[in-house]
Amino acid sequence: MATIEAVLDCIDANLEASRARLFDLLRIPSVSTDPAYTQQCQNAAQWLADQLNGLGYAADIRQTPGHPIVVGHAQAKRKDVPHVLFYGHYDVQPPDPLELWTADPFAPRLAEGKNGLEIVARGASDDKGQLMTFIEACRAFEANGGLPCHITFLFEGEEETGSPSLPAFLAENKKELSEPDIALVCDTSMWNASTPAITIMLRGLAQEEVIIRGPSHDLHSGMFGGPVLNPIHILSKIIGDLHDADGKVTLPGFYDGVPELPQDVADQWRKLDFNESDFLAELGLTRPGGETGRGVIEQIWARPTCDVNGIVGGYTGKGSKTVLPAQASAKFSFRLVGSQDPNTIMESFRTFVRARLPVDAKVEFLAHGASAALQLPFGSEALARARRALSTEWGRDAVLAGCGGSIPIVGAFKRELNMDALMIGFALDDDRIHSPNEKYSYASFHKGMRSWARVLEALAA
Amino acid sequence: MATIEAVLDCIDANLEASRARLFDLLRIPSVSTDPAYTQQCQNAAQWLADQLNGLGYAADIRQTPGHPIVVGHAQAKRKDVPHVLFYGHYDVQPPDPLELWTADPFAPRLAEGKNGLEIVARGASDDKGQLMTFIEACRAFEANGGLPCHITFLFEGEEETGSPSLPAFLAENKKELSEPDIALVCDTSMWNASTPAITIMLRGLAQEEVIIRGPSHDLHSGMFGGPVLNPIHILSKIIGDLHDADGKVTLPGFYDGVPELPQDVADQWRKLDFNESDFLAELGLTRPGGETGRGVIEQIWARPTCDVNGIVGGYTGKGSKTVLPAQASAKFSFRLVGSQDPNTIMESFRTFVRARLPVDAKVEFLAHGASAALQLPFGSEALARARRALSTEWGRDAVLAGCGGSIPIVGAFKRELNMDALMIGFALDDDRIHSPNEKYSYASFHKGMRSWARVLEALAA
Repeated sequence: MATIEAVLDCIDANLEASRARLFDLLRIPSVSTDPAYTQQCQNAAQWLADQLNGLGYAADIRQTPGHPIVVGHAQAKRKDVPHVLFYGHYDVQPPDPLELWTADPFAPRLAEGKNGLEIVARGASDDKGQLMTFIEACRAFEANGGLPCHITFLFEGEEETGSPSLPAFLAENKKELSEPDIALVCDTSMWNASTPAITIMLRGLAQEEVIIRGPSHDLHSGMFGGPVLNPIHILSKIIGDLHDADGKVTLPGFYDGVPELPQDVADQWRKLDFNESDFLAELGLTRPGGETGRGVIEQIWARPTCDVNGIVGGYTGKGSKTVLPAQASAKFSFRLVGSQDPNTIMESFRTFVRARLPVDAKVEFLAHGASAALQLPFGSEALARARRALSTEWGRDAVLAGCGGSIPIVGAFKRELNMDALMIGFALDDDRIHSPNEKYSYASFHKGMRSWARVLEALAA
Repeated sequence: MATIEAVLDCIDANLEASRARLFDLLRIPSVSTDPAYTQQCQNAAQWLADQLNGLGYAADIRQTPGHPIVVGHAQAKRKDVPHVLFYGHYDVQPPDPLELWTADPFAPRLAEGKNGLEIVARGASDDKGQLMTFIEACRAFEANGGLPCHITFLFEGEEETGSPSLPAFLAENKKELSEPDIALVCDTSMWNASTPAITIMLRGLAQEEVIIRGPSHDLHSGMFGGPVLNPIHILSKIIGDLHDADGKVTLPGFYDGVPELPQDVADQWRKLDFNESDFLAELGLTRPGGETGRGVIEQIWARPTCDVNGIVGGYTGKGSKTVLPAQASAKFSFRLVGSQDPNTIMESFRTFVRARLPVDAKVEFLAHGASAALQLPFGSEALARARRALSTEWGRDAVLAGCGGSIPIVGAFKRELNMDALMIGFALDDDRIHSPNEKYSYASFHKGMRSWARVLEALAA
């Protein structure tokens, strides 16, 4: 096996050819949501399978109820090395509104941006440019003695429509796909243009609608107001009771399984180039709310929440109406972290609500799904290796990032294959993904390839 | 002046002629809300003026922006007697749905009901039958030596559409109309078929919408949930704080001016033929809520309330949406009693809300009107006399009733003419007012006339 330096040199020397291949992929308008592009999705999948075959890998496209999934398998020269599953998606968002593009969204081009050269096209950043960084890194290894890890490739074509076919596909092909030790997902961002990031925690989400019922029908507040219980009052009291004065959630057991940050991570986050005031000002706010004493980043990445996302009851039109409503309802959501158990928490929530119902009030619960947080353990060996590899490439400590929301495919890997994921991506916040003039920094593309080379080498070392 | 017995005998002897006159009025389809009946409203007004003229009173019809108002003046034989203003309305609700009537709604007829003879027609109870009880009582006095009180008659034709012309009419004719000592309003019900009632208290009503704003726009609860304040939580906390565990409203000063019931009234209400369980069962409830230790009737007639009539914020459609809403709003209403001052209470409310706003939360208040309670003092001499008169006629103590809602015209008399009102009516709860087959008990009509004769005589005694 060649040294990593030879692989990196190869990447540098063949950058223009790599770019040309990416442009070929970008020219295929693989818009997944529009049936008019079904054949183009098929074409993009086939193009990727051809690329993998061209590298000597066993790859083909598998039909699904939607767009095909590309599966490939590549062996390292040595047997006793890690096995990774690499995930990317070849489908893209529709380019509309077309009139806001400065050129054809499926005619990729290089343009001078304010921070250097950019690849401009629909899918440049999300996710064709990102997935090609990985394939091109593999190509450089193949030209220099072979891969350091066994690799299973998985490219889907329905990410932009919510990956409807993926979970069943994983379940049906579990035997073939569950061999790898870890998933590598290239669909996320860097912390900033010079600082790489590994996303290792995604908050879970449990959602429940609560309907409180009082009198059997709406009543006139003049004729009945006083002795009749008001479901809006009952619901409001419940909501008001859910947080204490320090912004903590009061549900019994809610913080069971919520880990404190390791000191090094806490230190890293504290030192991040992040201005809370600027962040809040964009939202029209001046001070962080939520849990007293927790920073904005910690709260969004690593702390659980309870929020009401919607409430309605009684008369909500213009002006006034003297009605005592028969019911009121609210949609609650809980963002979860660490090993908080969604089912335990929802049970605690229902008990909490029932305990606050006066005589004659009735409650109905409508569950809207519950999933636990996904967290790669802070002490993971693969994480430590990937972090070192990225830090070496970029000359800066890679940020261990969280994500306040969920990424469904990562949940699917965990659920269907019991596989953790390292989410490493080189997109930037200003890549205009899903918007006109989407771009991918040429530096992201180049250093992304180099980063993957270093990560694969580090995982196998 | 003749004895009251002669007057009552005259009423009894001429009952059939009285009924015939009422039928003449009921044949005029004076539907106020439908422009197709404009001329019929005019005709009904003219018919009433003619009736008053026929009794020798100075009466005419006055045009308004809507339907005409009939004004008449009648002098008692003696000068130094009370002066009363009698109010009724000649307009009726539309008869729809016509197919549910067993006969033409404007072809009045006598029918045998389950509790005796009934006059069936649109307007029989609301309000033509009721107002004719008073005119026919006057007619009996005129045949027996003249009226015991000076009387101003006021009949409007827009009660069923909210009396839009009445307040301005009262203000513009204040000199002519403010002479009477008290208003007599015949548009209410008896306690039951054998027990008369005088309504002496109407709760006031202050309404205010509150809009709480947090972040400048809706946010994704995954990306922002934690440090971002949630207007639904803030609003709910405020609502939850508005009542204590005993159901009392916690606004400072809220109970200033709320009188306790005089002992005799409290005793009367406690002994009323009223089954709380049956009342609540109709509403799907088993126990009274509201203020601990206060009965249902007391709460509705004589206690103030604070209710939220509507609340809305965030996503309220089907399923779930992970949104942190930028705003939430609720419509509050306060039912007021005694001498509670609406303005003081609304100021206290706004202070209460502002005190519960965290940093960065903003509030907007939208006032939707405020009016004080209307209460004839429990110790009023006119009330005592009317009560005795009714009790004599019916052989039962007349109930001093409250009304949980407002009756706009009574507020208008108070506001524009500074005149209190005695609300005495002979309708029954099963009169089907506003519904098909509206009826007025023939006994209500007959004893209603007798009751007014006794009341007028008692007021002058």
